[in-house]
Amino acid sequence: MDDKTRTPVTVIGLGLMGQALAGAFLRAGHPTTVWNRTAGKADGLVAEGARAAATVGDAIAAGSLTVICVTDYRAVHETLGAADVELDGTTLINLTSGDSGQARETARWAEARGARYLDGAVMAVPPTIGTPDAVILHSGARSDFDAHEQTLGALGTVTYLGADHGLASLYDAAGLVMMWSLLNAWLQGAALLRTAGVDAGTYAPFAQRMAAGVADWLPGYAEQIDRGSFPAEVSALETDVRAMAHLIEESEAAGVNAELPRLLKAMADRAVAAGHGKEQYPVLIEEFVKPGTR
Amino acid sequence: MDDKTRTPVTVIGLGLMGQALAGAFLRAGHPTTVWNRTAGKADGLVAEGARAAATVGDAIAAGSLTVICVTDYRAVHETLGAADVELDGTTLINLTSGDSGQARETARWAEARGARYLDGAVMAVPPTIGTPDAVILHSGARSDFDAHEQTLGALGTVTYLGADHGLASLYDAAGLVMMWSLLNAWLQGAALLRTAGVDAGTYAPFAQRMAAGVADWLPGYAEQIDRGSFPAEVSALETDVRAMAHLIEESEAAGVNAELPRLLKAMADRAVAAGHGKEQYPVLIEEFVKPGTR
Ligand SMILES: NC(=O)c1ccc[n+]([C@@H]2O[C@H](COP(=O)([O-])OP(=O)(O)OC[C@H]3O[C@@H](n4cnc5c(N)ncnc54)[C@H](OP(=O)(O)O)[C@@H]3O)[C@@H](O)[C@H]2O)c1
Ligand SMILES: NC(=O)c1ccc[n+]([C@@H]2O[C@H](COP(=O)([O-])OP(=O)(O)OC[C@H]3O[C@@H](n4cnc5c(N)ncnc54)[C@H](OP(=O)(O)O)[C@@H]3O)[C@@H](O)[C@H]2O)c1
Repeated sequence: MDDKTRTPVTVIGLGLMGQALAGAFLRAGHPTTVWNRTAGKADGLVAEGARAAATVGDAIAAGSLTVICVTDYRAVHETLGAADVELDGTTLINLTSGDSGQARETARWAEARGARYLDGAVMAVPPTIGTPDAVILHSGARSDFDAHEQTLGALGTVTYLGADHGLASLYDAAGLVMMWSLLNAWLQGAALLRTAGVDAGTYAPFAQRMAAGVADWLPGYAEQIDRGSFPAEVSALETDVRAMAHLIEESEAAGVNAELPRLLKAMADRAVAAGHGKEQYPVLIEEFVKPGTR
Repeated sequence: MDDKTRTPVTVIGLGLMGQALAGAFLRAGHPTTVWNRTAGKADGLVAEGARAAATVGDAIAAGSLTVICVTDYRAVHETLGAADVELDGTTLINLTSGDSGQARETARWAEARGARYLDGAVMAVPPTIGTPDAVILHSGARSDFDAHEQTLGALGTVTYLGADHGLASLYDAAGLVMMWSLLNAWLQGAALLRTAGVDAGTYAPFAQRMAAGVADWLPGYAEQIDRGSFPAEVSALETDVRAMAHLIEESEAAGVNAELPRLLKAMADRAVAAGHGKEQYPVLIEEFVKPGTR
């Protein structure tokens, strides 16, 4: 396909991520119009074939698909609220990071001005954009996603989550807490093993197998959560709590940070105090769905 | 092979785990002698062909391989410290849970009384014992492990970690912190998504892919740790910290427990305050190897 048959796209915001997004569209052959508050950041993309628009309004008028990726939702509103901007007729894909409330509110705001709106979350770093490793989540009307799925596919692995515009932010947050938690758990283990002279490289494959093994339990544990019934088929929460006490002692005896073990135990202790000691670990969901105590 | 060619084994302690261990030896055809403080717990195993010894000393005298699995190390010392117990000539495999200090001390104690000693950790629940799903870790002299690897193989997937008797406990602790952390991260995500009506079963496959993807980074991150050098090849810690702030806001706005997100951020904040904001996430190892602040 040559340029004439590829959907024209507009990219607003040319920070690290916006430049990567515009570059991926260009490499996939889409006529690409760009705009950035600091105009100089468009130069490299123009050299690659992009057209730099003089104003945001001009940039958006250039096509029916607009991707915006700026620092935060405040910057989104400042940029799209400019006097010359006409959103009617464009589908706006907002890949700026934010929370689900901001996403829902921005959807209402954009739709009131005639735009179609999908909220998105980029679960990737700029160098992977344009490869299958870049996972990009979308939420909003399914028909709007379907209409642009192929074009958005130039950016990476694009996923549709559902009609609620807040979903992309929520899945993003959920994915990030998994990322940091898994890394911190591994660092806790690496710190413990270092006290016995075991290096991180030796421990890594063991941690990988452990993580993969536990991840395999999630669908079964999810059934318990969705049924709201937590029989101790494999082990009881009070058994976990006893082992958590050992983990704290082991960390303290080794002179290693015990904050993570202590938080694990504090949450499980509360579930036991609430009468769930004979149930299975996922019963802890009840501690997570309510606000914490500190 | 019939009974005559299988190594005779002794199992001390017939709680849930000890019964499973003795049962697996019996099913694999090993002549099995058992002892438990409360004698009645041997009955089922005797019906399956085990011999119940009248005293601990008698049980240990029956063979050259003794597996002990009781509540804690105190119970190990009480049991093996009985007047009629002769440890000289047996290889003692201690599968009781404890910390690395207790393992090292018990190794010295047993070796001073003439035993060969391996410390172990059972990373499995009783129903899986005797299947490859039961991972059992061992540490101590390699020659002692090699001499009994085939016999111990009747219990599950047996692994040798190294000469330091503390290693089995340390790997066990490291594996458990990975387990609980991954589960809690998933519960945090499930709680967030529940606020948008997404059930745990819908979220589980996403969490599994996320966990598997992050686990794949560990060997590369381990190289950074073992070199002690953390260039921000993919992203900088200060970028993570900004996203952690969003995660806390998202959790609080959704009325979901934010203790885990707050701990993640508190540890990363300290690393940034220590001057590591432009380095990559694994630089946080420096927060884990030192005692925590609460
Ligand atoms: N980089 C990553 O690894 C990554 C990964 C996933 C998600 N994200 C998300 O992607 C978004 C952009 O990140 P980035 O890495 O590209 O950030 P960046 O390099 O700091 O770029 C920020 C962009 O926002 C623009 N901007 C900020 N305030 C503005 C305002 N008031 N009006 C108009 N434009 C404004 C900046 O314009 P100027 O050039 O004029 O300052 C610049 O184009 C963020 O929400 C980030 O969380 C980034
Ligand atoms: N069950 C699991 O899922 C699991 C998983 C991994 C590791 N483990 C570890 O395996 C070990 C045993 O667990 P378990 O589930 O078998 O526990 P359990 O069912 O509570 O059995 C405890 C055993 O220890 C004996 N015992 C306790 N104190 C004693 C003493 N002072 N002298 C002599 N014997 C004593 C008990 O004898 P009596 O019968 O006379 O009370 C019983 O045989 C623990 O360290 C546990 O952490 C268990």
